[in-house]
Amino acid sequence: MRAAVLHAPGDIRIEERERPRPGPREVLVEVTAVGVCGSDVHYYEHGRIGPFVVEAPLILGHESAGRVVELGEGAAKHAVGDRVALEPGVPCGRCRECRAGRYNLCADVRFFATPPVDGAFAEFVAIHEDFAFALPESLSDEEGALMEPLSVGVWACRKAGVSAGDRILVTGAGPIGLLAVQCAIASGATDVTVSDVNPHRLEVARRTGATRAVTPGDGLDGDFDALLECSGHPAAVAAGIGALRPAGTAVLVGMGPEEEGTLPLSVIQARELWVTGTFRYAGTYPAAIALAASGRVDLEAIMSRRFGLDEAEAALRAGREDPHSVKPMVLP
Amino acid sequence: MRAAVLHAPGDIRIEERERPRPGPREVLVEVTAVGVCGSDVHYYEHGRIGPFVVEAPLILGHESAGRVVELGEGAAKHAVGDRVALEPGVPCGRCRECRAGRYNLCADVRFFATPPVDGAFAEFVAIHEDFAFALPESLSDEEGALMEPLSVGVWACRKAGVSAGDRILVTGAGPIGLLAVQCAIASGATDVTVSDVNPHRLEVARRTGATRAVTPGDGLDGDFDALLECSGHPAAVAAGIGALRPAGTAVLVGMGPEEEGTLPLSVIQARELWVTGTFRYAGTYPAAIALAASGRVDLEAIMSRRFGLDEAEAALRAGREDPHSVKPMVLP
Amino acid sequence: MRAAVLHAPGDIRIEERERPRPGPREVLVEVTAVGVCGSDVHYYEHGRIGPFVVEAPLILGHESAGRVVELGEGAAKHAVGDRVALEPGVPCGRCRECRAGRYNLCADVRFFATPPVDGAFAEFVAIHEDFAFALPESLSDEEGALMEPLSVGVWACRKAGVSAGDRILVTGAGPIGLLAVQCAIASGATDVTVSDVNPHRLEVARRTGATRAVTPGDGLDGDFDALLECSGHPAAVAAGIGALRPAGTAVLVGMGPEEEGTLPLSVIQARELWVTGTFRYAGTYPAAIALAASGRVDLEAIMSRRFGLDEAEAALRAGREDPHSVKPMVLP
Amino acid sequence: MRAAVLHAPGDIRIEERERPRPGPREVLVEVTAVGVCGSDVHYYEHGRIGPFVVEAPLILGHESAGRVVELGEGAAKHAVGDRVALEPGVPCGRCRECRAGRYNLCADVRFFATPPVDGAFAEFVAIHEDFAFALPESLSDEEGALMEPLSVGVWACRKAGVSAGDRILVTGAGPIGLLAVQCAIASGATDVTVSDVNPHRLEVARRTGATRAVTPGDGLDGDFDALLECSGHPAAVAAGIGALRPAGTAVLVGMGPEEEGTLPLSVIQARELWVTGTFRYAGTYPAAIALAASGRVDLEAIMSRRFGLDEAEAALRAGREDPHSVKPMVLP
Repeated sequence: MRAAVLHAPGDIRIEERERPRPGPREVLVEVTAVGVCGSDVHYYEHGRIGPFVVEAPLILGHESAGRVVELGEGAAKHAVGDRVALEPGVPCGRCRECRAGRYNLCADVRFFATPPVDGAFAEFVAIHEDFAFALPESLSDEEGALMEPLSVGVWACRKAGVSAGDRILVTGAGPIGLLAVQCAIASGATDVTVSDVNPHRLEVARRTGATRAVTPGDGLDGDFDALLECSGHPAAVAAGIGALRPAGTAVLVGMGPEEEGTLPLSVIQARELWVTGTFRYAGTYPAAIALAASGRVDLEAIMSRRFGLDEAEAALRAGREDPHSVKPMVLP
Repeated sequence: MRAAVLHAPGDIRIEERERPRPGPREVLVEVTAVGVCGSDVHYYEHGRIGPFVVEAPLILGHESAGRVVELGEGAAKHAVGDRVALEPGVPCGRCRECRAGRYNLCADVRFFATPPVDGAFAEFVAIHEDFAFALPESLSDEEGALMEPLSVGVWACRKAGVSAGDRILVTGAGPIGLLAVQCAIASGATDVTVSDVNPHRLEVARRTGATRAVTPGDGLDGDFDALLECSGHPAAVAAGIGALRPAGTAVLVGMGPEEEGTLPLSVIQARELWVTGTFRYAGTYPAAIALAASGRVDLEAIMSRRFGLDEAEAALRAGREDPHSVKPMVLP
Repeated sequence: MRAAVLHAPGDIRIEERERPRPGPREVLVEVTAVGVCGSDVHYYEHGRIGPFVVEAPLILGHESAGRVVELGEGAAKHAVGDRVALEPGVPCGRCRECRAGRYNLCADVRFFATPPVDGAFAEFVAIHEDFAFALPESLSDEEGALMEPLSVGVWACRKAGVSAGDRILVTGAGPIGLLAVQCAIASGATDVTVSDVNPHRLEVARRTGATRAVTPGDGLDGDFDALLECSGHPAAVAAGIGALRPAGTAVLVGMGPEEEGTLPLSVIQARELWVTGTFRYAGTYPAAIALAASGRVDLEAIMSRRFGLDEAEAALRAGREDPHSVKPMVLP
Repeated sequence: MRAAVLHAPGDIRIEERERPRPGPREVLVEVTAVGVCGSDVHYYEHGRIGPFVVEAPLILGHESAGRVVELGEGAAKHAVGDRVALEPGVPCGRCRECRAGRYNLCADVRFFATPPVDGAFAEFVAIHEDFAFALPESLSDEEGALMEPLSVGVWACRKAGVSAGDRILVTGAGPIGLLAVQCAIASGATDVTVSDVNPHRLEVARRTGATRAVTPGDGLDGDFDALLECSGHPAAVAAGIGALRPAGTAVLVGMGPEEEGTLPLSVIQARELWVTGTFRYAGTYPAAIALAASGRVDLEAIMSRRFGLDEAEAALRAGREDPHSVKPMVLP
């Protein structure tokens, strides 16, 4: 099969690879749509993300959907021909974190496109059947691929406890921020303020339900129930925390270049705020699919240009080269 | 001022009463809209609800909105002329329940139309300013009055922890059940099944977003995240509990004639279900107003015939006499 | 190896069985201590527990500890010679319940001594290494075996949210009730009332920290934070629920002969109580071991007569024949 | 009556003041014991704590107990002669925070010894009867006064969700840290590590149950369930956060001189930690009294020298002048 393989920063090659064989209880999936994530771009540009270093050729891509083409031994959940969205991380299922339901924190997770595990910029991938989720007819394969970033938004809203009538601040209107906006609204938020420097992205936020779109530095009135921080800028973290109501929650979703940041500790104490962060997501695919299938979130709104598998490198460059690019899609 | 006063079961009289004077930090409100609640009807028909017995003439009505016409000493939250929705129960603010945020369980609460406290079927009522909530322009006075039953739906959804992508079963499609359906959807539920024997009410449920409307006895597939029981029928409680997924939650909202009911204890254990009930609500008005003002819930859909204050008795009889009646409104 | 095998109600035979071989990531454990549980007795007497029917010869016993004697392929968590307590249920690790951290509700769990899975009244058992927990030196093998019923108590306290300064009511002072009393105290409860008809068991409760021991029917003052119902008597459920403070929690731990019970629904509503049940436990072994090793719970206090493996049947009969029997132990 | 009044930094004068009269539902209390808190010392030394500035003469002291000597109109909870511990902050009971049970965050709270509200370094104080709590015989007045700092420990443990079998890290072994250690143990923690630079305080920690006492900089193994940060040192915050297990909780209790601090944001995200802070406490007095009365916490262990009211200034200086001082007591 063909695959887009990262050999070194800036060096993607289209290569022939052996088609994977589905192991016990795995399904082999013909990949039909893959979203390009900022982490793919980061690996492409820098060859690493923090402690995760690309030391051997790596297939990128972890936001994927496709069609089941073969069943491994004992696999019974899907039939050949079924369209599925793929949850890209398969945890051990046994450790303390897995047992506690925090399987996203499993130290032994195997996650697509995270060294040394290959991803989905390829014609085929194999995955445990329980991490493939049937797509309803109302969802396209491309929408199916975006169950992954949508899960990030669902998870952020769960951590924040977004509920009916809430006022939410979303800082950063990249793909994750834009989906967080939509998830917050779908979770009952009636007032969603989004901030970004990119006017095109703010316009998308407005079109998809944000009640207010601002640029960083605009005054915020300081009474939000929750902050969904999706920019990765430490300044946004601190400013957003300062705008929370007493006992409000800040969820750090975006990852910035710095490992540390300066937070207003006295405000956290005086208002008894809660600050947490998200690392991927756990148990979100059914909700993400239900939200998308019921029309509560609009995924088309964030998709930008489509690329073939041979154009994977162009897809990885699209974000830098086109200010209107939000979520490029690769269609193997 | 004129008021509709209950003297005995079936005996409502329109009488002149002295206009109340607002005490310290109270506002005097000219009542412009009052919803008729099942509890008003129950007092009218039986002169009591469980331990609450009407022993002296009582003004009914607790779902109300109006216009501020006078400020008591120290009242500063509202201006004369402001349109407000009234939260009808003022708790002590000091006891263990109040301190814990469960002020709806305060033993010393003073609640409209609960003996011996008069209600809002009158031209004027006085209330502590913190229990009057400003109505935005987008909401009518009638909608303002319905912040009260909407609060019951909001509270039920909070107890159930309804969140994005949930599957919810609502049993009973009276006004509370219908609002619970809408609140569940506004809270992110993507699959809401409602059951009732009244086809008109099921039709209203469908029009306001229920994804499935059934009659009791129709098969339920047994995988709901939560049950919002709004019928008060013990059989609905037991059947609904049996249809929950493992670790699901049943919230008993409807009050039936019996104090006890037979529950499937072995199912509660084997699936580790949670069963709870609601008594009024706490801290829901801001969310209810936000949901209504943002168009997330449609209150017009449940309003039925309007009556003048002099017709309060007819309003209390409407439910019995007109199968299409859902929520009669009294407009003093 | 020798094992005590249940062939039919009342028919236990000591037989030679093939020693199990540890599979991948399993350990083979030489069993040194097994507690006798009421469920073992129930299988022995009736050949079934609800839907679980003994249709083929079954080795009973699921409260066990022992010594690792062989490692399966890839097993690396324990060394040969290590003393371990065994968590007797191994879930699938993949289903919705497992992913949510509710692995005790996994439909595919394999649980010792639950048909058709054999238990620990045998010289050897094999189990996944992650379900064997190292025993510290301060704990005996017998205490190690009792990590299982202690887990039931830990789980009940977690469900009830027992915390510092709480007032707890425990109904039923069998082994589970007695351990629930100790767990509640270890979790911070300062007032623990226990009720039972058996004076010997009440005396054990007193000795292990209960602040009040009563017989059913004694007046309860109605202000408990939580009920831990360990008797399985529907009457105890209803009376205990009636004695809870507003917003209190009732946890049904004991399983009675009836599948249904009559609950005071109007009290559940008026006080917004929470009622739930427990089915085994999840993620409790580390806490149970820490509590026992630190001396917070006294397991010797509930152990009664010891039996050899050949006397397994006598151990199963001990509860009926000796009113002072609390927890008989089998030492293979 | 006599009172110790702060006129300016370093300027405490013993003065005659008019005895307060108890208002409606208030009790007049003859103060018999007052603990000296770090905040009293801070006001004494600097005349302010952050935004709270002493602009007029102020009576310090907010950890107090005494004897009821007079009842205001309508006060019925206590009798003259009752011994009571005083919760020193009386909130409005009406605002959003109060309604949500977060009354410690009430913007209109009146709190002893916080400008412009006088405190308890005086012969008498008046307080709403619901904020006076009956002391059981087993507790001395001095212990009663320490229900206040004990509440801080209880609140920290609640925020951290300390439960049976937990491993807890307490940084800072001043009075609050020492009480946090004891509260954690009383809440079920079986492994409590405490760090401080003061060997005397570490010794007190050991004597009262800490399982490990270290100095900052000693290696920590990085698997704590919760951090109770009681030192106010930003370095301790960051180091403590780094030592938490995945999904662990850090509670900032100590207030340092800096309003901001540098936190390891990437660790918060990668482990999905929760960071929060405490501001006083809410609803803790009954639990604090129950813990002390049942002997779960040892308050004598932290009391150091006793002073008369005339020696209030010496009491405020004791912490600086005597390295063995932990909690000086003023006995008016």
